[in-house]
Amino acid sequence: MRSFAGRDILSLKDFERQEFFRVFEIAEDLEHFARDRQNTDLLKEKTLVTAFYQPSTRTRLAHEAAMIRLGGQVTGFADAKMTRAGDFYQESIKDTVKMLEFYGDVIVMRHFQQGAPHEAAKWASIPIINGGDGWGEHPTQILTDLYTVWKEKGTIDGLKWLAVGDMRMRTMHSLAYGLTQFDCPITFVAPPDMSLTKEFKDELKQYSLNYKEAEHVEQAIAEADVILVEPVVQPDYTKSRDERSGDVNLTPANYKITRELLSTKAKSDAILLHSLPRMDEIPPDVDITRWSRYWQEAFNGVVMRMALLALVLGATE
Amino acid sequence: MRSFAGRDILSLKDFERQEFFRVFEIAEDLEHFARDRQNTDLLKEKTLVTAFYQPSTRTRLAHEAAMIRLGGQVTGFADAKMTRAGDFYQESIKDTVKMLEFYGDVIVMRHFQQGAPHEAAKWASIPIINGGDGWGEHPTQILTDLYTVWKEKGTIDGLKWLAVGDMRMRTMHSLAYGLTQFDCPITFVAPPDMSLTKEFKDELKQYSLNYKEAEHVEQAIAEADVILVEPVVQPDYTKSRDERSGDVNLTPANYKITRELLSTKAKSDAILLHSLPRMDEIPPDVDITRWSRYWQEAFNGVVMRMALLALVLGATE
Amino acid sequence: MRSFAGRDILSLKDFERQEFFRVFEIAEDLEHFARDRQNTDLLKEKTLVTAFYQPSTRTRLAHEAAMIRLGGQVTGFADAKMTRAGDFYQESIKDTVKMLEFYGDVIVMRHFQQGAPHEAAKWASIPIINGGDGWGEHPTQILTDLYTVWKEKGTIDGLKWLAVGDMRMRTMHSLAYGLTQFDCPITFVAPPDMSLTKEFKDELKQYSLNYKEAEHVEQAIAEADVILVEPVVQPDYTKSRDERSGDVNLTPANYKITRELLSTKAKSDAILLHSLPRMDEIPPDVDITRWSRYWQEAFNGVVMRMALLALVLGATE
Repeated sequence: MRSFAGRDILSLKDFERQEFFRVFEIAEDLEHFARDRQNTDLLKEKTLVTAFYQPSTRTRLAHEAAMIRLGGQVTGFADAKMTRAGDFYQESIKDTVKMLEFYGDVIVMRHFQQGAPHEAAKWASIPIINGGDGWGEHPTQILTDLYTVWKEKGTIDGLKWLAVGDMRMRTMHSLAYGLTQFDCPITFVAPPDMSLTKEFKDELKQYSLNYKEAEHVEQAIAEADVILVEPVVQPDYTKSRDERSGDVNLTPANYKITRELLSTKAKSDAILLHSLPRMDEIPPDVDITRWSRYWQEAFNGVVMRMALLALVLGATE
Repeated sequence: MRSFAGRDILSLKDFERQEFFRVFEIAEDLEHFARDRQNTDLLKEKTLVTAFYQPSTRTRLAHEAAMIRLGGQVTGFADAKMTRAGDFYQESIKDTVKMLEFYGDVIVMRHFQQGAPHEAAKWASIPIINGGDGWGEHPTQILTDLYTVWKEKGTIDGLKWLAVGDMRMRTMHSLAYGLTQFDCPITFVAPPDMSLTKEFKDELKQYSLNYKEAEHVEQAIAEADVILVEPVVQPDYTKSRDERSGDVNLTPANYKITRELLSTKAKSDAILLHSLPRMDEIPPDVDITRWSRYWQEAFNGVVMRMALLALVLGATE
Repeated sequence: MRSFAGRDILSLKDFERQEFFRVFEIAEDLEHFARDRQNTDLLKEKTLVTAFYQPSTRTRLAHEAAMIRLGGQVTGFADAKMTRAGDFYQESIKDTVKMLEFYGDVIVMRHFQQGAPHEAAKWASIPIINGGDGWGEHPTQILTDLYTVWKEKGTIDGLKWLAVGDMRMRTMHSLAYGLTQFDCPITFVAPPDMSLTKEFKDELKQYSLNYKEAEHVEQAIAEADVILVEPVVQPDYTKSRDERSGDVNLTPANYKITRELLSTKAKSDAILLHSLPRMDEIPPDVDITRWSRYWQEAFNGVVMRMALLALVLGATE
């Protein structure tokens, strides 16, 4: 297996099967630090540079919390408006990373343009972690999801997946690429205008992913071991949250995982994932049911970033 | 007395008399670290999460400086625009804190909605500190003010207060709740459209606060031991600071503490507090008079946050 | 020589000749920490406050990275919108620094108003570093440039300079003031509407700077040992970077340093500096030529800030 030291985390297409397990094992090794709220000095004298050209809460803060937990430091920017490298001046990615590489030892980048972290990796002498690139990928989120499944179910192979949401989104791309390395049939449910693109389907066939598409979650939920949900509607920004909550059935029933649906149709040991934030595709009364694992995902989000940072900085080998 | 360890700091309504003194004593114990600019490792391995949905300088940075002084770390967001949890996506407070609690050990939250930190505290497994919630409260600011009075005057009981400003503001709410635990008559001076609401007055009567209202600071300044001032005018954002400085008497004399007023009417040992920023309600030539204590307040702001963080994180007991 | 401990870094007008060399020597002493990516505890228990009223990437992050490298901590704000001290409330500089001085041990300030850091220094009890003030100065950038020259050429005296760009910019002011302490003839090339002001020329004559002006870089490049470039055009914000790249000759040839010009006209050992970000005044194909030193400048930017922070905090003496 290739070493992770010095490596970029850009796409789950780059990941071989054994590498997923390597990452999971390191995550499991480090998890007790997060659980016991203890710091370690594994990344002492290492600094993470956050280069967020789009706002983020979970991705940025989970990386920051992971770095702090491992004894490292953080610098960077949380918003393109905070930097002349962003929207304002639109400096080239090359010029930006030829500067950022002197400010720390690893860069996590979120960018509105697909491929921006890949361009960064071409020029940087330090590892680049893709924190979400436009419609591209979001590998650290899906690694978090796969780790959550592995921990909760003890395996990944053999589990049936149901993925609901906008199939053009970066998390869905990373999910599909990731599952190509496992024996996991998956059903995608999305509104027609948000379904898998022709190009992406062709690519998935090449990778031999066993997938099908359905129109309604009811058609696929009964056999699912893992249900991964993303929003299909965007907030109406002209309304406040309170005003919007009056909108009945914001998310059509086809793409909504309700408590009733879970109780009547889902396997009793299925697990329900959502990277959050959510609209109403999972109503809050689902939160305390046996199926919900999204808070656990938030915790695992820190653990996974601890593993990735330790790995690419060569602290585990 | 209840332990502070693990406790939320949401409202001064929650504070019993002895608890104020407990906080003051811890602040006094820790003050030398701030004064001598020395760090300690009392909060080693602890991380503060700043969740600021509205911009702030003093409240956010005083908490950050306090955390650093005590050997802890900081992560979080300084602006709702920096996070998908803010204005942009309007995620529920529940969803946000079920994530943030994995990123650190205590959360300080400023929110444009009254009650948001209380909602956060319902869901979080770690302490929430209210850094100002809409028209609600601003308990850490008023604890700073009360500590400043206690340090400067050696007591709180028996002092007469004059509070000038917009009585609908959160600092005024926290002040009034706080003073209910002490023997402190207070006079409120506010423009008619910014005076105490009927509901709030009813509440203050229930708590037996000895208060009265006046129309002009001149009517109350002579007997005041403590003068606490907040702005009654908002900046005219269409003008620059320099242009605005041409506006004579921006703040009506009724609500303005001038050097002349202090020299001719105030007690020689009265102290003048302002949490800042200010408009012209206290002109700069007051800064070097014997009455001014607002720079001291800024220093005490760090000391008070050191005490609160140490207390709620159980580091003092 | 005056001690640097406790001193403000506001303007290169304040710098005596021997002080430049003192700064360079400290930078050289500390450089290995940055090169070897090792931290030291020289500034343990010291905190840098970033007070950025305008966005910045290089200046802010280079200071932060320097502080982290020396074992210190960072707090502050990266944008005026993040603070009530900024555009929003337009608090006076005095009021702001009388607060910020309690949050750390040194303040680096960028401000849209010329002279703001000087005003801050009048009131603060801790050192103020000017991180760029309106049309005023940008001393830490030019110290970085001079250090880069000193390291690359082994000397500063005797070198001929060519400076291209908008001569009203703060970097140009600091450059001219800085060079008055050395034996360095300089030619300025700028569009007519961006040329040296009458007032500034008078001042430079008083300081006996040996300068001339030219209309085209071709007239001065042949004899230049150091070529320092700044943009003369602003991005067209109505176009994306990609759209703009279609604009042929965005920067007129008079102010552009191309690979061809360098190959045919420049001294073979001349060095080319740019503080970045750039438009097209230096095309990317120059990056790998022998003349380019702007990535080195980015590295030296951290080293120089390490030296300045160590010096003003009295950690080197």
